[in-house]
Amino acid sequence: MTLIVQKYGGSSLADAEKVRHVARRIGATRDKGYQVVAVCSAMGDTTDDLIRLAYTISPRPDPRELDLLLSTGEIVSCTLVAMALKEMGYPAVSLTGFQAGIRTERTYGKARIAHIDPQRILKELEEGKIVIVAGFQGFTEDMDITTLGRGGSDTTAVALAVALEAERCEIYTDVEGIYTADPRIVPEARKLKEIDYEEMLELAVAGAKMQPRSIELAALYRVPVVVASTFSDAPGTLIHGEVSMELRERVRGVASDTNVAKITVLGVPDRPGIAAALFEPLAQVGISVDVIVQNASVEGLTDLSFTVARSDLPRALEAVRPVAQQIGARGLHSDERLAKVSVVGTGMQYAPGYAARMFRALADAGINIEMITTSEIRITCIVREERVKEAVRALHKAFRLEEGG
Amino acid sequence: MTLIVQKYGGSSLADAEKVRHVARRIGATRDKGYQVVAVCSAMGDTTDDLIRLAYTISPRPDPRELDLLLSTGEIVSCTLVAMALKEMGYPAVSLTGFQAGIRTERTYGKARIAHIDPQRILKELEEGKIVIVAGFQGFTEDMDITTLGRGGSDTTAVALAVALEAERCEIYTDVEGIYTADPRIVPEARKLKEIDYEEMLELAVAGAKMQPRSIELAALYRVPVVVASTFSDAPGTLIHGEVSMELRERVRGVASDTNVAKITVLGVPDRPGIAAALFEPLAQVGISVDVIVQNASVEGLTDLSFTVARSDLPRALEAVRPVAQQIGARGLHSDERLAKVSVVGTGMQYAPGYAARMFRALADAGINIEMITTSEIRITCIVREERVKEAVRALHKAFRLEEGG
Repeated sequence: MTLIVQKYGGSSLADAEKVRHVARRIGATRDKGYQVVAVCSAMGDTTDDLIRLAYTISPRPDPRELDLLLSTGEIVSCTLVAMALKEMGYPAVSLTGFQAGIRTERTYGKARIAHIDPQRILKELEEGKIVIVAGFQGFTEDMDITTLGRGGSDTTAVALAVALEAERCEIYTDVEGIYTADPRIVPEARKLKEIDYEEMLELAVAGAKMQPRSIELAALYRVPVVVASTFSDAPGTLIHGEVSMELRERVRGVASDTNVAKITVLGVPDRPGIAAALFEPLAQVGISVDVIVQNASVEGLTDLSFTVARSDLPRALEAVRPVAQQIGARGLHSDERLAKVSVVGTGMQYAPGYAARMFRALADAGINIEMITTSEIRITCIVREERVKEAVRALHKAFRLEEGG
Repeated sequence: MTLIVQKYGGSSLADAEKVRHVARRIGATRDKGYQVVAVCSAMGDTTDDLIRLAYTISPRPDPRELDLLLSTGEIVSCTLVAMALKEMGYPAVSLTGFQAGIRTERTYGKARIAHIDPQRILKELEEGKIVIVAGFQGFTEDMDITTLGRGGSDTTAVALAVALEAERCEIYTDVEGIYTADPRIVPEARKLKEIDYEEMLELAVAGAKMQPRSIELAALYRVPVVVASTFSDAPGTLIHGEVSMELRERVRGVASDTNVAKITVLGVPDRPGIAAALFEPLAQVGISVDVIVQNASVEGLTDLSFTVARSDLPRALEAVRPVAQQIGARGLHSDERLAKVSVVGTGMQYAPGYAARMFRALADAGINIEMITTSEIRITCIVREERVKEAVRALHKAFRLEEGG
């Protein structure tokens, strides 16, 4: 029997009626003759509610305790989906990340999956059951519970699809697929029928809905991923490795992300080892640095700016402050009101001029660019948060993304 | 270092302020030089809320899924208590029932603890940590999560006290100890300074706050248990095995319980094997039968009545109905609006007349007795639920429990 891994996001599971709806969809997949493993996120805003609860107890909740706390959200939704399936007459069982054998590294808050021991899942599938797995969580070799970070359930789903050699991984969410831009910002945004891993990865990094690591994993093992709506039967977007040539020659999408904060270290001595000294402590506490810009040196001193996720800002400042003092920096600045806007497309790597067109479009809209970073197939600008929607609309128009394809 | 196991009930952990208060109490015990293992129940009404949530999904939630769902409540409270302790500067770690090594049998909803593997707890204690353990839950040999039934956190605490050879087990709750009757029903009820295991067990069976299994376990291993208030420093009630002789010669308390439903099987053939045939299916689904009464036989037919916990009534009826038909019973009756009232005291086993005094007191109050059952040191009457508070007050007065001792 062919196996499909599905993933249902939190907004698809926000209340009892939606839980039943998800169970019906899972059941319908089963009725078509598939084995199903369904990964569930926490219901609605549960994770945020639990985080708030933790912060009422402590301004800096212990990361191990916070992960164990947050892991309960997915367990709740999984048990409810399994109950709903049983109520509909389907054999089903829910498994925690631990029970599902999802072993991770010991990095609380954004643990990476080390490997999956699928023994229990396989046993349940052999017994004819639909298996519901708590997303977003795993366990360390010491049996401590970890979480995989925002969007971690996507990674759980893709990792399970890899480990179980599933035919495909279906990501069900509250939108109908991957769009040329967020349709809430750009009404004329177009749904993409397909997109290749690399482009999707860049879109995800740039702020589109999926967790980038899930795309990396899918690309690595060539697992086809379908992103579609929980609430409609419209075909979604297929993420895979064989996108037709002609689609490769354009900008595919504009993405934005407001979860951006900037830290500037002022008056840093311009000598070797300084950047390492600044970024090592961030790596040690598991904070990813995104855009890094170093100004031209004036009299042996330079300013170094970098961005981190806004939620990481307090911890990032804490980690960087002692080093900044130690290396004799003049000061530390931070700015939380920033956003990223990016254009993505494999076409860019063969055709020059995309960057110029992007900067021109933003300039014409009167939007100031604070920082710039590029990959082979992505150009990202950091702009003020309050201008980011305008920036997305301007770029969508400049690259004529509303047209065909 | 001497070890104390503490247990904090749900009403002691109802909000963030109470969580901090509990953490302060735990910290204060540590400051006195003790090692502390603290078992926590779910916050406030969490368990009931989760049960309601399950019933919005299914009228008969799958027991395995329900247990996994309910287990999250205690995990939440434990992580918060551990965070609060860390915030106050104490090293602390929270453990799920699984992490704490609490192995149970596979009886969902009311699993019994099979054994405890305290390795992880001991490791954390050796590292100088305060260990917070999720009450009410354990795991089977197949790594499935079970719960221990209402009040199960008491049993978790006593079982840990046994396994860890604690000096004593302290049960913190929203009352100051064990009373001669529920002070909300009888304002002149008196707090007992001490009570022996046997009497406490009968009081617990009869409806007083603790889970009876926790007392059985404490008695078996002679662990002293103190029941006291989370919110005051008043000395509580010591439950132990060496109560002074003179206290043994009286009725010690009146207990009541409204979680009672009666099932009557009408017109049962009066021949051997019938009772076994009726009660075996109940045992198989894990339902405890409490009071059993069989009427005198008339023309080879009899009526058989028994009580179960009210929450078990639907499942009990389901289990008994096919057997009742099979043995040719005339019908099945059930009544949910009943309650138990009991008097307890070791004195009863040596002095006659207690039963007569009890029945007289109820008769004088105009309260009808529906069923009667006795143990060596307890007499229990089943009465209509709406009369039970009156019954408690009448008995408290009849046995002069407001006086001294």
